[in-house]
Amino acid sequence: MKGEKQEIHHTKPIRCIVKLGGAAITCKNELEKINEENLDIVSSQLRQAMMPGWSSSMKVLGMDWSKRHGESEVSGSFGHFQASKSGVHKGGLDQSLVKAGFVATRISVTTLNLEVVRALAREGIPSIGMSPFSCGWSTKEKNIASADLAVVDKAIDSGFIPVLHGDAVLDKLQGCSILSGDVIIRHLAAHLKPEYVVFLTDVFGVYDRPPTEPNAVLLREIAVGKDGKWSVVKPELQNMDKQVQTTVAAHDTTGGMETKIAEAAMIARLGIDVYIVKAGCRQPQTTH
Amino acid sequence: MKGEKQEIHHTKPIRCIVKLGGAAITCKNELEKINEENLDIVSSQLRQAMMPGWSSSMKVLGMDWSKRHGESEVSGSFGHFQASKSGVHKGGLDQSLVKAGFVATRISVTTLNLEVVRALAREGIPSIGMSPFSCGWSTKEKNIASADLAVVDKAIDSGFIPVLHGDAVLDKLQGCSILSGDVIIRHLAAHLKPEYVVFLTDVFGVYDRPPTEPNAVLLREIAVGKDGKWSVVKPELQNMDKQVQTTVAAHDTTGGMETKIAEAAMIARLGIDVYIVKAGCRQPQTTH
Repeated sequence: MKGEKQEIHHTKPIRCIVKLGGAAITCKNELEKINEENLDIVSSQLRQAMMPGWSSSMKVLGMDWSKRHGESEVSGSFGHFQASKSGVHKGGLDQSLVKAGFVATRISVTTLNLEVVRALAREGIPSIGMSPFSCGWSTKEKNIASADLAVVDKAIDSGFIPVLHGDAVLDKLQGCSILSGDVIIRHLAAHLKPEYVVFLTDVFGVYDRPPTEPNAVLLREIAVGKDGKWSVVKPELQNMDKQVQTTVAAHDTTGGMETKIAEAAMIARLGIDVYIVKAGCRQPQTTH
Repeated sequence: MKGEKQEIHHTKPIRCIVKLGGAAITCKNELEKINEENLDIVSSQLRQAMMPGWSSSMKVLGMDWSKRHGESEVSGSFGHFQASKSGVHKGGLDQSLVKAGFVATRISVTTLNLEVVRALAREGIPSIGMSPFSCGWSTKEKNIASADLAVVDKAIDSGFIPVLHGDAVLDKLQGCSILSGDVIIRHLAAHLKPEYVVFLTDVFGVYDRPPTEPNAVLLREIAVGKDGKWSVVKPELQNMDKQVQTTVAAHDTTGGMETKIAEAAMIARLGIDVYIVKAGCRQPQTTH
């Protein structure tokens, strides 16, 4: 997605924010199963992208010094099952099931976050896991009410790569809520003003209908104006009324593809290009 | 340790803060090995202490809904090895080994924290893991420089049990440092003003010399005055010049028993009783 460029000034230039989508690094249809191969490929590619002078003859200073590294039998749909089973996204912490679901959701998403931090650390990327809940992020009717970015800024200034995740958080009106990774990315993008944002997922990009359907057309470039209106630039489509058909998986408490496109469009509106990319391709095909 | 009582007013009364010492729930002499049995016993006892109306006929609403629960092959001296190997406690984030050690330390301590949260959640305790780093805690020459307790307060007000841990944090002067669990407990105690604080460890309390030595005498009660001076009340000792002999393990970057006693004394000085208790006893013997 292309956003109209704005002049942005930042104290420390951030090149890119990457969203590791659940579909990209986990096996979405299995309970808590990481797609180890994809996670390793993605981590390695991120290292290469971050360290341009690196050659394969150089040694990686791995940063996961724990006993368990390499193999995880933690196993994809981290957080979604726990949140939807108990209705954490609907609020109501006074109900014991919701409270239990809140705890269970946080255990699940922090487990995945730790595995991602581990995979990145094995590649020598100085990653720091940060939970939005612990950073003091909260919502009000599911929108971000407070989000302290001071810790994120300090970590970046100290040379670390913050790794955040979708989280169960407190909500000022309904008690609790699910803060999705997409909303977090948008908030980070608005604050950090990176050159671009990458969404890693399990498909090549946004299609005009679910990519599993026959004749689904990959939208290679979508332009988003400052007014938030968007139009497909490539390919040139006939009889296309901008209406992209989307579906929401039953277990997804954060709104599915429609929310994701809307969030990506809101980032593009800030003048930040958004790339939606299939994860784990050795030679990634990007859509931009 | 007994502190002189002060009048304390708090908006929400906190009964107790518990320190799960590394010696209590891990196998100190092995790399990253949790003492599963002790952790389970301690979690169960904490549940019973928190839910006085609970009877064994009632069902526990477990809160760890992840696949892996029950068995962890995460394995005990979490963080210490990584921190001491790289000198994180001495600072110097511009050195790549220190930076790598910082990341490795955080991976190790957050792994242990997650396992503790899991064990508590299995007992139906609504525990929320919180990393001091993520909460914005930092040090200046190893003393706490900033520690945002707003998130801890909000979690408690929402009915959750915050579970913090010793952490690698940013230090304003030396770049980075290790913030020990004992310092965190003292800070929490000063803010939350609980009725008492419990340190769970692997010995029955403070001895007049390392408890492995013959004739080591368990100090059953130590009185701490507001001036910070302390004296042994029970047992009545002869020829005792208050000088308690302590040792510091080679891998311990946070000061060993001497620091722990000093931190406990500083809590007692606030008028909060401190109990040092051996973890994992089915019928715990407390020293107070």
